[in-house]
Amino acid sequence: MSSTDTVFDFTRAERIGLSEAVFCAGKSPQQIAGILESARERDASLLLTRLDVAKYDALPAHLKAQTDWCDISKTAYFGQLPPLSLTGKVAIVSAGTSDAPAAREAERTLRHAGVECSFIIDVGVAGLWRLMDRVEDIRRFPIVIAVAGMDAALASVLGGLYGGALICVPTSVGYGAAEEGRTALNAMLASCAPGLLVTNIDNGYGAACAALRLLNTMQLR
Amino acid sequence: MSSTDTVFDFTRAERIGLSEAVFCAGKSPQQIAGILESARERDASLLLTRLDVAKYDALPAHLKAQTDWCDISKTAYFGQLPPLSLTGKVAIVSAGTSDAPAAREAERTLRHAGVECSFIIDVGVAGLWRLMDRVEDIRRFPIVIAVAGMDAALASVLGGLYGGALICVPTSVGYGAAEEGRTALNAMLASCAPGLLVTNIDNGYGAACAALRLLNTMQLR
Amino acid sequence: MSSTDTVFDFTRAERIGLSEAVFCAGKSPQQIAGILESARERDASLLLTRLDVAKYDALPAHLKAQTDWCDISKTAYFGQLPPLSLTGKVAIVSAGTSDAPAAREAERTLRHAGVECSFIIDVGVAGLWRLMDRVEDIRRFPIVIAVAGMDAALASVLGGLYGGALICVPTSVGYGAAEEGRTALNAMLASCAPGLLVTNIDNGYGAACAALRLLNTMQLR
Amino acid sequence: MSSTDTVFDFTRAERIGLSEAVFCAGKSPQQIAGILESARERDASLLLTRLDVAKYDALPAHLKAQTDWCDISKTAYFGQLPPLSLTGKVAIVSAGTSDAPAAREAERTLRHAGVECSFIIDVGVAGLWRLMDRVEDIRRFPIVIAVAGMDAALASVLGGLYGGALICVPTSVGYGAAEEGRTALNAMLASCAPGLLVTNIDNGYGAACAALRLLNTMQLR
Amino acid sequence: MSSTDTVFDFTRAERIGLSEAVFCAGKSPQQIAGILESARERDASLLLTRLDVAKYDALPAHLKAQTDWCDISKTAYFGQLPPLSLTGKVAIVSAGTSDAPAAREAERTLRHAGVECSFIIDVGVAGLWRLMDRVEDIRRFPIVIAVAGMDAALASVLGGLYGGALICVPTSVGYGAAEEGRTALNAMLASCAPGLLVTNIDNGYGAACAALRLLNTMQLR
Amino acid sequence: MSSTDTVFDFTRAERIGLSEAVFCAGKSPQQIAGILESARERDASLLLTRLDVAKYDALPAHLKAQTDWCDISKTAYFGQLPPLSLTGKVAIVSAGTSDAPAAREAERTLRHAGVECSFIIDVGVAGLWRLMDRVEDIRRFPIVIAVAGMDAALASVLGGLYGGALICVPTSVGYGAAEEGRTALNAMLASCAPGLLVTNIDNGYGAACAALRLLNTMQLR
Amino acid sequence: MSSTDTVFDFTRAERIGLSEAVFCAGKSPQQIAGILESARERDASLLLTRLDVAKYDALPAHLKAQTDWCDISKTAYFGQLPPLSLTGKVAIVSAGTSDAPAAREAERTLRHAGVECSFIIDVGVAGLWRLMDRVEDIRRFPIVIAVAGMDAALASVLGGLYGGALICVPTSVGYGAAEEGRTALNAMLASCAPGLLVTNIDNGYGAACAALRLLNTMQLR
Amino acid sequence: MSSTDTVFDFTRAERIGLSEAVFCAGKSPQQIAGILESARERDASLLLTRLDVAKYDALPAHLKAQTDWCDISKTAYFGQLPPLSLTGKVAIVSAGTSDAPAAREAERTLRHAGVECSFIIDVGVAGLWRLMDRVEDIRRFPIVIAVAGMDAALASVLGGLYGGALICVPTSVGYGAAEEGRTALNAMLASCAPGLLVTNIDNGYGAACAALRLLNTMQLR
Repeated sequence: MSSTDTVFDFTRAERIGLSEAVFCAGKSPQQIAGILESARERDASLLLTRLDVAKYDALPAHLKAQTDWCDISKTAYFGQLPPLSLTGKVAIVSAGTSDAPAAREAERTLRHAGVECSFIIDVGVAGLWRLMDRVEDIRRFPIVIAVAGMDAALASVLGGLYGGALICVPTSVGYGAAEEGRTALNAMLASCAPGLLVTNIDNGYGAACAALRLLNTMQLR
Repeated sequence: MSSTDTVFDFTRAERIGLSEAVFCAGKSPQQIAGILESARERDASLLLTRLDVAKYDALPAHLKAQTDWCDISKTAYFGQLPPLSLTGKVAIVSAGTSDAPAAREAERTLRHAGVECSFIIDVGVAGLWRLMDRVEDIRRFPIVIAVAGMDAALASVLGGLYGGALICVPTSVGYGAAEEGRTALNAMLASCAPGLLVTNIDNGYGAACAALRLLNTMQLR
Repeated sequence: MSSTDTVFDFTRAERIGLSEAVFCAGKSPQQIAGILESARERDASLLLTRLDVAKYDALPAHLKAQTDWCDISKTAYFGQLPPLSLTGKVAIVSAGTSDAPAAREAERTLRHAGVECSFIIDVGVAGLWRLMDRVEDIRRFPIVIAVAGMDAALASVLGGLYGGALICVPTSVGYGAAEEGRTALNAMLASCAPGLLVTNIDNGYGAACAALRLLNTMQLR
Repeated sequence: MSSTDTVFDFTRAERIGLSEAVFCAGKSPQQIAGILESARERDASLLLTRLDVAKYDALPAHLKAQTDWCDISKTAYFGQLPPLSLTGKVAIVSAGTSDAPAAREAERTLRHAGVECSFIIDVGVAGLWRLMDRVEDIRRFPIVIAVAGMDAALASVLGGLYGGALICVPTSVGYGAAEEGRTALNAMLASCAPGLLVTNIDNGYGAACAALRLLNTMQLR
Repeated sequence: MSSTDTVFDFTRAERIGLSEAVFCAGKSPQQIAGILESARERDASLLLTRLDVAKYDALPAHLKAQTDWCDISKTAYFGQLPPLSLTGKVAIVSAGTSDAPAAREAERTLRHAGVECSFIIDVGVAGLWRLMDRVEDIRRFPIVIAVAGMDAALASVLGGLYGGALICVPTSVGYGAAEEGRTALNAMLASCAPGLLVTNIDNGYGAACAALRLLNTMQLR
Repeated sequence: MSSTDTVFDFTRAERIGLSEAVFCAGKSPQQIAGILESARERDASLLLTRLDVAKYDALPAHLKAQTDWCDISKTAYFGQLPPLSLTGKVAIVSAGTSDAPAAREAERTLRHAGVECSFIIDVGVAGLWRLMDRVEDIRRFPIVIAVAGMDAALASVLGGLYGGALICVPTSVGYGAAEEGRTALNAMLASCAPGLLVTNIDNGYGAACAALRLLNTMQLR
Repeated sequence: MSSTDTVFDFTRAERIGLSEAVFCAGKSPQQIAGILESARERDASLLLTRLDVAKYDALPAHLKAQTDWCDISKTAYFGQLPPLSLTGKVAIVSAGTSDAPAAREAERTLRHAGVECSFIIDVGVAGLWRLMDRVEDIRRFPIVIAVAGMDAALASVLGGLYGGALICVPTSVGYGAAEEGRTALNAMLASCAPGLLVTNIDNGYGAACAALRLLNTMQLR
Repeated sequence: MSSTDTVFDFTRAERIGLSEAVFCAGKSPQQIAGILESARERDASLLLTRLDVAKYDALPAHLKAQTDWCDISKTAYFGQLPPLSLTGKVAIVSAGTSDAPAAREAERTLRHAGVECSFIIDVGVAGLWRLMDRVEDIRRFPIVIAVAGMDAALASVLGGLYGGALICVPTSVGYGAAEEGRTALNAMLASCAPGLLVTNIDNGYGAACAALRLLNTMQLR
C-alpha cells in the first residue's frame, strides 16, 4: 500500500452531520487530482479549501472543467452543488475589505451544505455608525459569524449589542503588532463581552461548520 | 465623582439576554463589598467569578452571610438564586479531575441563569474506553461544553463523534510544554475535527454564557 | 563611592519640563528611604511610583508621616504637593473597575505636576451605551488618556469617535489569552482607528508624562 | 449585495478630522482599482498606503496616470494633492537610511493633509555627535516623530533631550534579535525616558495621523 | 585550508551505530556536489535530507545519475542502497495525507539502514473508526513512529491504546494556531498519555534514527 | 453524580503495561485524600507525583502513615512497594545537582514498577572530563535517561558517544535565557546528534514511563 | 551512590583559569550546607551566587559564621577571601539604582578572583549629561561591564563612545514590554553600535567571568 | 535636503577604532550605489555586509568592477583592501558546513581591518573527537570566535576546555525547534560554562568587531 493513498472518513456526515472537505494547503496537485478522480468515480461532490491559483491551474483540464473555483476564498466546488435548503438563519458580518477571504470561505462552505447566508460588510468599529446602522438587521439572525482582523474590536462591540450565537473568526489582516492574526485571536478570546466563541485564524471553513452544527442541533436542517 | 464607583451595565440582560457578572480578579475586597452593598440595596442577585478564598474571607460578615461560595470554582452567588427553568440541554464533559474548576464555573454560571446541566467527567482520551462508554449519553444533549487541558485531545476526538454544538474550554492544567493552557487552546483551535468553538483558557463562565446564547437563539429559554 | 548612592537627573525638569520620579519596583525600602532623606534635606517634593504596601510600611515613621500614599495606584507624594495650575484639559477614560490602578497612577502623576484631570469610568464597549452617553463630554477635552485591558476595544471605538490627542494605556487586566496585557497592548497598536498613541502596559505614569509633554508643547503650562 | 463592495467611512473627516486612507496590503489590484474608480467618480482625492510595485503596476493605465506613487514609502496620492497649509510644526527624526520607508510614509501622509514636515536623518546614537549637532534644531518643533529600528536607542536619548510631543515609530530594520521590529517596539515602550508615545511597527501613517490629531487639538489646523 | 571543506564524522557508525547523513538545507549545490564527489571517490553510499528540487536539479548530471531522489520526502540516496536486513519491527502511523513528507523521510532513512517499515496512514482521530480498525495491526510492532500535525491528538489516543515504544513526530501541517508545528509539538510533549517520546517538528529522519537506536539496543540489528 | 469523583483508568496496565499515577499538581488535598482512601479500600498501591510539601502535610494522618514521600522529587508511594524485578538496564545521567528533582522522579517511577536504575550524576559538559570518565560505564546500559537544564549540551555530547536508546529530559534549571526550560527542551529537539528522544520539561515520570515501554517491548519485563 | 552527592569540577581553574562557583538557585539549604562542609574540609574558599535570604538564614550557624553574604547581590564568600592582585582594569557602568544586584554580583565575583573594579553608576541615557560627564573616566579602562535594563539604551550609546572591550549585562528591571529583561537583552544584541558582547539576563557573575577571561588572555593576571 | 542622503559617522574609527560598514539589508541598490559613489569620490575603502546577489548584480558596472564580493558571506570589499597587519591572534571555530556564512563574514570583516584569522571547522560536538583533536591548536589563540547553530552545544564544550576570550555567534541553521537561531542564542546565553560572550544571530560582523575591540584594548593593533 502506498503512503500517498488517502483513506476518506466516509462516515463523517452520518456521524456528525458534516461531510469531509479537502484541505489543499499541504497537498501536491497530483494528490489533489487523485482525490478528485476518486470522487468523480464515486460521482461525489466535494468542497476544496486553501486551493491556491498555482495548484488550481495545475489540475488536469477535465477535472478543472468540473470545478467552480473562487479566487477570493481559494475554495472550489467539485461536481454538482447541492440544492439550497435553508436561508435567513446565518449572517456574516465583517470589519473590512481585507477580511473577504475568510468571510467568503465561510459563505461558500455554508452554500456547499445547502445553506444561504447574508453579508453585512465593512462595519469595522473605527466608523461606528456603519455598524449601528445595521444592528437591527443583524439581530434578525439567530447565528452570526463575525470576521475581523487587527484589533478585532468589532467582535466585542457586536457581543454587547447582539444576543444570539456569535461565532468569531480572527483574520491575519494587519502587520507588526497584529502578529499575523494572533492579536485578533487573543482579543476575541479575552473579549469584555460575554459568550463569544472563537475559531482559528482565517478559519472561515471552521466557522461555517460550527454554524452547521448549531443548525443541526436546532433541528433546522 | 470617584474613580472607584462602578457603572453597571444595567441593560445588558435586556439587550443580549445575559446579566452582568462580577469578575473579582482585578478588584479589592473593598470594591467587591461596595458592589454587593449596592446589589443588596437594589435587592438584586449577582454572580461573582474568580473570588479567591482570601477575598471571600475579607468580606463583611453580613454580606458573607448572603453569599453561597464554591471553593472549587471560586464562584459565588449573592442573594436569591433564581429558580431552575431548563434542564437536559447542556452536558459538561471533562478530561480529568484537575479540570474541575473550569467545569464547575460553567455549571454554576448556567445554574445562576436557571439552567441545569449534566456532568460527564474523567473521560480523557488516554483511557479511550471511558469516553466510548459515554458517547451515546453525550449525543443526547444539543450542546456540549468540553473541558480539557494539556494536549486537549478530548476535544478533537469528541468533535469527530458528536455532531451538536461543541464549546471547548482549554484549561491551564499541566506544566512545561502545556504553556499554562496555551497548548490546549491552540490544539482546540487547530483541531482536525471540524466546527469546534473555543473560549479563553479556564473560561468556564464564558462557555456557559455561550451556551445561554445558543439556548436563547433556539428559543428554549 | 558606594554602588547604592543615587545620581539624580537634577536638570531633567529644566531640559524637558518633567521632573524625575522614583520608580520603587526595583528598590529596597532602605534605598527608597535614602532617596527620601536626601529629598527632605533639599526640601524637595517627590513622586514615587510602584510603592507597594510592604515597602511603604517599611519606611521610617518620620518619612511616612510626610508621605501621602494611595493604595489603588501604589503612588505616593513626598513633601508638599504643588498648587493646582491647570484644569479641564485632560480626561481619563477607562473601561472597567479593574483598570483603576493605572488610571489613578496617571491622575496622581498629573496632579503632582499641578494638572487636574477628569475621570470618565466604566465605559467599556461591551455596554456601548455607557460610552455613547459620554462622548460629548469626552470631546470637550483636547487630550484623552484611554485605559483598558483584555481586548482594549474601547481604544478603537473611541479613536473613531474622538479627534483629539488619544493616549492609550493597556492594562494587565484579564487572564489566559489576555497575556498579562500584551493582547491589549497589541490591539491598541494594531487598532483599525488611525492615530492612536500607546504606552507600556499599566503605565499610567508614562501616559501622564506624555500628556504633560503635549500641554507643554501647546504652551498651556 | 456583493461581499467585495466597500462601504467608505465618509464621515470620518468630519468626526475626527482625519480622512480615510486605503490600506492596500490585504487588497487585490481589482479591489484597489474599484476604489479608485469610485473616488474618481466623486472627484475625490485619496491616500493609498502599502501599495507595492506589483499592485501599482497592475492598475489600469488611466488610473495610474492620476496616481503619484513613491517607491520608498509605497504610498500613492490619487487625484489632486491638497494645498500646503501648515509648516514648521513637525520634524521627522530618523536613525538610519533603512528607516526611510516609515519616515517617508509619515511625511507623505502629512503632506496629503496639507502639512509640511522637516527631515533630520541619520542621527542614530551609535554616532552620538550626529544627534547632538541637531538637538537645537529639533527643539524648535512642537512635535517630533522619531523613527528607529534595531535597539531604537534614539528614542530614549531624544526623550531625555527634547521636551515636546514625541511620537515614536519602531521599524522592522535588523535581523535575529531585532525580532522584525518587536525589540524596537518594546524598547520604546519600556524606555527609561518618560512620556514617549509609540505606534505600531513601521507605522509611519499612524504616526502622521497622531501628529494631525495633536495639530487639530492645538487648533493649529 | 578552505572554510568550505567538510570534515566528516567517519567514526560515527562505529561509535553509535548510525552513519552520518547530509543535511542539505543550509548548503549550496556546490557544497553538496563536493560532498557527493568525495563520497564517490570513497565508493561510499550516502543519505541526503532536505534536498529540495532546485538543489537537486542543480547537481551535475553524472552525480544526479547516481542519485535516487524522492519528491515527497526530499530525500535522496547516493550510490548503492544497502540490502534489506530487517522487517516487521517498525510501523509508521500517520494522521493525514499532509503528513506524508515526514512519514516518508522516516521510511527512507530506515530503508537506507536496511530496515523496512510498514505504513498505516490516514488514521487521524477526527474519524476515530479509521484508527480503531487498525489498532490490532499496530500492536504487532514493537516500535511505532506516530506522525501528526495540527492538534496531534493521534499521539495521545495511540499512547493510550498501544504499549510499545512510541516515537512521535509533530508536523508543520496547519495554519494560524497550529503555529508551524509548535502546537503539535507541545501537545505531544504535554500529552495525557504516559511515556510518549518526541522529536523535532517534521523530523522524520530523527525518528528513524531513534528507531535504529532502539533496534540496535535490542540487538535486533 | 458529583463532579469531584474520579473515574480511574483501571485497564491501563492491561492495555499498555503502565499503571495510572496520580498527578497532584491540579488537585486539592481533599481530592488526593479521596483517591488514596479509594485505593486503600481496593488494597491498591499508587504512585503520586508533584505532591508538594503543603499538600503532603495536609493529608490525614492515617493516610500519611502509609505514604513514603520524597522531598527531592515530590513523589510518594502509597501502600506496598512492588518487589524489585529488573536491574542493570537503565542509567540516569544528569548534568548537575539542580537536575536532581527530575532525575529522582524518574528513578522513583521506575522503582515503583519494579525496575532499579543507576545514577551517573554531575557530568555536565562544562567539565567534560567528568563525562569522559564515565562513558564506558554508560555504554553498558541499553537505555539512558539524560537529564539536563540550561543549554542541555550534555544531551548532544552524549548522543554522539552513546548508541543506545537515549531519552532526554530537559529541566527548568537556570534563569533568563534558559526560559524556564524551553531552551533546554529546544536544544535537545534541535540537537546535532541524531536520534535523541525528548520528554516534557522536568518530566522524569514520563521518561521513566518511556523506559518501561522500551523494556516491555524488548520483553525484558 | 546517592543522587545528591556533588561531583566538583576540580580541574576547572587549571583548565580555563576560572574556579567553580556554587549556583544556589536550584539547590536546597541542605545541599548547600553539604557543599560548604566539603569545602571546609578541604580548607577551600568558595563563591556562592543566587543565595537568597531564606536559604542563607537556613544554613547551620557554624557555616554562616564563615560566610560573608551581600544582600544586594545575593552572593556570599565562604572561607578566606583571596588577596587583591589587580586593579584599574575593569569598570562597571550601570544605568540605574535597580541595576545594582547584577552590578554587585559582577563586582563581588571579580573581587573573589582578586580583581578590584570601579563603579560608575546611574548614567542611564535619559539624562545623557550624567554619562557624558564620565566618558573620559570610562575610557581609561580596557574593559567595561555595562549593566542596564528596560530599553538598555546605555549599551548602544556607550558602544559608540568607548572603543575597549564592552561586556553588556541586560537586567530584568522594568515591567510589561520590558518582558523580564528580554527587551534589554534583545536591544543589546541588536544594537546599532558594533562589537557589543552580551551575557544572560542579570548575569553579573558571567560578565565577571568573561572579564577574567580577557584579563587572563591579556596575561594581566 | 533629501531623506535618502546618508550622513556617515566619519569619526567612528577615531572614536572607537572601528570604521563604519554598510549594512545593505534594508537598502535599495540605488542607495548602495550612491554610498559607493560617495566613497569613490573620497577614495575611501568600504566593507559592505548582507549584500545579496540580486543587489550586487544590480550595481552599475563601474562600481561592481571595484568590488570584491563573496557569495558565501554576502560581504563585499569596495576599493583597496588594507594591508595585513596582524596574524595568529584570532581563531574562528565552527560546528558545521552550514555555519560558513557567519564564519566567513567574521573572517572578511577582520581581514578588512588588517587582521588574519585561522579557521577550525566542522568540530560540532556530535562527533566529539573532531574537537578534541584540535583543542591544543585552539588554545594557542588568545581570542576564539565560536560559530554554531541548532543546539550550539559546541560553545559550552569549548567554554569548558578553553580559557581565553570566547565570542559566540549563534546561527540560524536548523528548523522547527531551532527557532531560526533563537535556540542557539539562548543556549549560548544560558550555557553551563562560565564567561561566554554572545552576539546576535548570524552576526559574524559583530563578532569580528568585538574581536577588534579586544585587540585594540590589548594594544596589539
